Amino acid sequence: MKVPVIRNILEANDRIAAENRALLDKDNVFCFNLMSSPGAGKTTLLERTIESLASKINIGVIEGDITSNEDARRIAKKGVKAVQINTDGACHLDGSMIRTAMDQFDLASLDLLIVENVGNLVCPAEFNVGEHMKIMILSVAEGDDKPLKYPVMFRECSALLINKIDLLPYTECSVDKIRKRSLKINPKLTIFEVSARTGEGIEAWTKWLKARVTRRKRHEA
Amino acid sequence: MKVPVIRNILEANDRIAAENRALLDKDNVFCFNLMSSPGAGKTTLLERTIESLASKINIGVIEGDITSNEDARRIAKKGVKAVQINTDGACHLDGSMIRTAMDQFDLASLDLLIVENVGNLVCPAEFNVGEHMKIMILSVAEGDDKPLKYPVMFRECSALLINKIDLLPYTECSVDKIRKRSLKINPKLTIFEVSARTGEGIEAWTKWLKARVTRRKRHEA
Repeated sequence: MKVPVIRNILEANDRIAAENRALLDKDNVFCFNLMSSPGAGKTTLLERTIESLASKINIGVIEGDITSNEDARRIAKKGVKAVQINTDGACHLDGSMIRTAMDQFDLASLDLLIVENVGNLVCPAEFNVGEHMKIMILSVAEGDDKPLKYPVMFRECSALLINKIDLLPYTECSVDKIRKRSLKINPKLTIFEVSARTGEGIEAWTKWLKARVTRRKRHEA
Repeated sequence: MKVPVIRNILEANDRIAAENRALLDKDNVFCFNLMSSPGAGKTTLLERTIESLASKINIGVIEGDITSNEDARRIAKKGVKAVQINTDGACHLDGSMIRTAMDQFDLASLDLLIVENVGNLVCPAEFNVGEHMKIMILSVAEGDDKPLKYPVMFRECSALLINKIDLLPYTECSVDKIRKRSLKINPKLTIFEVSARTGEGIEAWTKWLKARVTRRKRHEA
């Protein structure tokens, strides 16, 4: 009984996600969907990313949380337009939620639309929202066994940011094991080691991201 | 369309959970359902708990993971019977998965059955599995805003273990804020501060847990 129900929901979602993607492509807006466990550092990473890129490209952010609007307020403080989605219990964002939020932006004026998903290493990976790329964060405090236990997220993502590397001396986590285990699941994964708190490694990440956004805009010209 | 589907699934689950609970009660087995984000330290906490209590009470553990059996192997190394459930994609355990796993135990010989749920701060809180108590872990590395953003988990649980307190000097997390925000959602929450890694605070937790198990057995006599 359950399987067909879930399949129908996923199919309906994929249709709306494809429409979102067409709207983004019409205005050459690059969009990535940022996912992680709760507290891995998504919002802090976005704050650093905006500090680095907001003077060069036009950024919009959609914040997904079950409840609260704290994250959107944090992003807005950085001078970037942020729209908060409250899922009211749902454990992931879906295409129709993103459509409603997209309507709040003037897409023609944007270069980059960032979707920060609900903190959850499982469900968000299964729902496309129209993004060009899924990107994940893993905090070293979560441990190096996570690729073994949550393989779908690692398989679906194009880039992995290993965050909180400033905590490495105080944990048993091996970055080398994370790398090997992640790449075994997804050999094409681009991996960054960062500390959103101290700023370490952020430049390599934002440079890589900006190249993706700019390439998109060049196609337009 | 979605709401009635979800309601039917939850109702069917509640019926099976009630049957599980009756089976546990028949043999006076105390059962708690342990939940947290990925990497908050559930398995390490259980290792410490077993080291402290296994000579005094008979413990069984059901391990829930999307894939892999690493956690059950870690528990079995401590000399306790562990059964691994692989949910094969599902983001939470449900009553029927637990029933199947319970069949692997001789309940009459157990005092305590521990269910370690899939690492997820959202979905597991909504599915009863027949447990007497839901207990959660929050790692200080996740930050003190989590009660604001994942209130259902904090509302459903009877006890909160604030873990990885050895990392406090290296984070901006305030235990005081976690306490205040959690108790505002759930004033009856019992809170422990622990480091499963260093062993700090574990004695208070295991003493509290053992009292719950023993009380149950005394009712039986």
